[in-house]
Amino acid sequence: MALPLFLSLTPPAEAWRMLEAHLVEGPREAETVGLLEACGRVLAEDAISPADLPGFERSTVDGFAVRAVDTFGATDALPALLALAGEVRMGEEPGFGLGTGECARIATGAMLPPGADAVVMVETTEHLGGGLIAVARPVAPGENVVGRAEDVAGGDVLVRRGARLRPQDIGALAAAGIFRVRVALGPRVAVMSTGDELVEVSDSPAPGKVRDTNSFSLYAAALAAGARPIAAGIVKDDCEAVASAMREALSRADMLVVSGGSSIGTRDFARDAIDSLGKPGVLVHGVAVRPGKPTILAVAGGKPVFGLPGHPVSCLTIFRLFAEPAIARWMGTAPARREVDAHLGANVASVAGREDYIGVRIAARDGARWADPVFTRSALISGLVAADGVAKIPAEVEGLEKGAPVTVALF
Amino acid sequence: MALPLFLSLTPPAEAWRMLEAHLVEGPREAETVGLLEACGRVLAEDAISPADLPGFERSTVDGFAVRAVDTFGATDALPALLALAGEVRMGEEPGFGLGTGECARIATGAMLPPGADAVVMVETTEHLGGGLIAVARPVAPGENVVGRAEDVAGGDVLVRRGARLRPQDIGALAAAGIFRVRVALGPRVAVMSTGDELVEVSDSPAPGKVRDTNSFSLYAAALAAGARPIAAGIVKDDCEAVASAMREALSRADMLVVSGGSSIGTRDFARDAIDSLGKPGVLVHGVAVRPGKPTILAVAGGKPVFGLPGHPVSCLTIFRLFAEPAIARWMGTAPARREVDAHLGANVASVAGREDYIGVRIAARDGARWADPVFTRSALISGLVAADGVAKIPAEVEGLEKGAPVTVALF
Repeated sequence: MALPLFLSLTPPAEAWRMLEAHLVEGPREAETVGLLEACGRVLAEDAISPADLPGFERSTVDGFAVRAVDTFGATDALPALLALAGEVRMGEEPGFGLGTGECARIATGAMLPPGADAVVMVETTEHLGGGLIAVARPVAPGENVVGRAEDVAGGDVLVRRGARLRPQDIGALAAAGIFRVRVALGPRVAVMSTGDELVEVSDSPAPGKVRDTNSFSLYAAALAAGARPIAAGIVKDDCEAVASAMREALSRADMLVVSGGSSIGTRDFARDAIDSLGKPGVLVHGVAVRPGKPTILAVAGGKPVFGLPGHPVSCLTIFRLFAEPAIARWMGTAPARREVDAHLGANVASVAGREDYIGVRIAARDGARWADPVFTRSALISGLVAADGVAKIPAEVEGLEKGAPVTVALF
Repeated sequence: MALPLFLSLTPPAEAWRMLEAHLVEGPREAETVGLLEACGRVLAEDAISPADLPGFERSTVDGFAVRAVDTFGATDALPALLALAGEVRMGEEPGFGLGTGECARIATGAMLPPGADAVVMVETTEHLGGGLIAVARPVAPGENVVGRAEDVAGGDVLVRRGARLRPQDIGALAAAGIFRVRVALGPRVAVMSTGDELVEVSDSPAPGKVRDTNSFSLYAAALAAGARPIAAGIVKDDCEAVASAMREALSRADMLVVSGGSSIGTRDFARDAIDSLGKPGVLVHGVAVRPGKPTILAVAGGKPVFGLPGHPVSCLTIFRLFAEPAIARWMGTAPARREVDAHLGANVASVAGREDYIGVRIAARDGARWADPVFTRSALISGLVAADGVAKIPAEVEGLEKGAPVTVALF
């Protein structure tokens, strides 16, 4: 029997470090997908540009391509007079070069003709007729021009591994001609609920019973975090049944999250069951955080196991604190953090030495953003829906006053 | 021929209002999905709870269920002595009631036995042996109890239509026994690029040509916004070809986004082509925003058409300003806004009367969050990847100084 570690609560940051020491940085598994399906996925290897971007010297303005030296000294009173040698349109390779004293009409994005090294903006020129262009201002070599490979050079890392691909990254990869990418697969996360009181969501609960809320919220949270969740069902509060169901679930998964059964009470089978799954077993039992104190963090044969409180709000809070970062690490990335700053909308009491997470609703008032606490004594379910996120009350303070600045992690 | 509206630029908010007046609030189409596939989707109708939550009076603590009146006046010196009538465990329907002077051991979440109306916490009791429990503190009726339907009453709206379902909403719906939901389908958005310089991403561009970046970034952005994108390919800069391709694409779609061809220049076919698609035609040509000035907003036969600049950064910026809200409205929801507050990391010049959107990278320094501008004169593609979002410089100022507070819309 292990020592009763749970008598002393572990600060959340330390609990994470204890778990993190056993995690292997990913991506652990990857697949190849077409670029149009890659948005939102995590890049599994650096995307190297095979091409120079741009692939040719191009103009950044509408105007005239010139040899810069031919414009030196030009003024309104004494413009440089250049002979129009031709026109370069978008998408064309110029069929001519510029000799001394020549220029070519050019569009934004079009390719400079050989001999040209700058572009004068159309606004500083005048077409005199007879194929003569007056240039009233000098340009330096390279002015209004983007050089070949100036944006991205062939061989450069275009998007780093671990990046969550956004629409603009997809565009950048397309520009370089990369149309298939390796992306990380998420860990298989088995999701299990324990409790004699639980019935399937599709069942009608008898008096005293409740539906299994956490299987659904955790399955959805795992999916949203990029994992491949596996529904491992409801297990009755029986040490042998729980241990054997956990063993079976973990054999098919990379991680296990179990809700319920971890409260410090008479029927606390989860801890012993989790500890029986493999080495090193339970690392942390009891975290100095509210809600979520009875959390268990464990590793069995290299696979993280999370014992989450049965309370639906605590359960999701702890999943986000510990399981979400573990899933991200397995994939070789960081959790997608969504945070806003706000002013606390009411006084909130708290206990020093414990991190408190307060469900809040974000509201705009008096030109500022407010985080209004959503009180949830009896509002287990309606509180889930009402909250836009959680505000953190740090461990070192005994509560915060109305108006205090807080950072809200959005759900 | 319409008036040259583009000579005067329309402020972005006014441009949106002009478009919005023609949009029909959604959800326009919906489908039924299982709850496990519903996360991230937009609820198409109010989810009404068919059940009371909780469905029975339950304890919020570990302790003893009592008749509150039996504890009135109890103190440490003179505790109330109650006879232990039994125990209620989680998930059980109590097989007994409480008479006067009786109590029952009860677990957090368990059902109150008939006759009980409050729970005393185990910490304020002492088991004297012989089936006698001493209660040292009085409780009021309802104390440490959640009443039937106190959280959610049957018939209440549990989650409102238009909500983007999060893991906690999924949990709440599960708790109420709702395991299939109606969710909005996104509009079919045809994505087209115009330009003689464009080649397919899988092709090797000849000198002067570039790959079609925008088709990919816009397809991904439409998908991320919840739409059903349709790749409508590349069309050469020819008024008839563009108009006929647009007509064909729009016949299969609910909206059309076209990039390129909308700059105010000699080869501006897009405006006339868009105007030929149907009534009322072009509403706005030219928006007082940078990047993105040459934007076209139009409606043809009830279907929004967006003419976006060809520049990859402008194109995505304008998509987010106008197309994303239009997609959200079609689905009966609001765009999923992701914003953070930060301090501008450098002086930024701007022109009064024009909203500027500056690509920035978010960085933590000196205990604050900074938005460092990502300069992109030549960095069309690398700038796309480098930016975490855009900071807005309002129309009424001529630039902002380093350190000024800005709101950053994250990509």
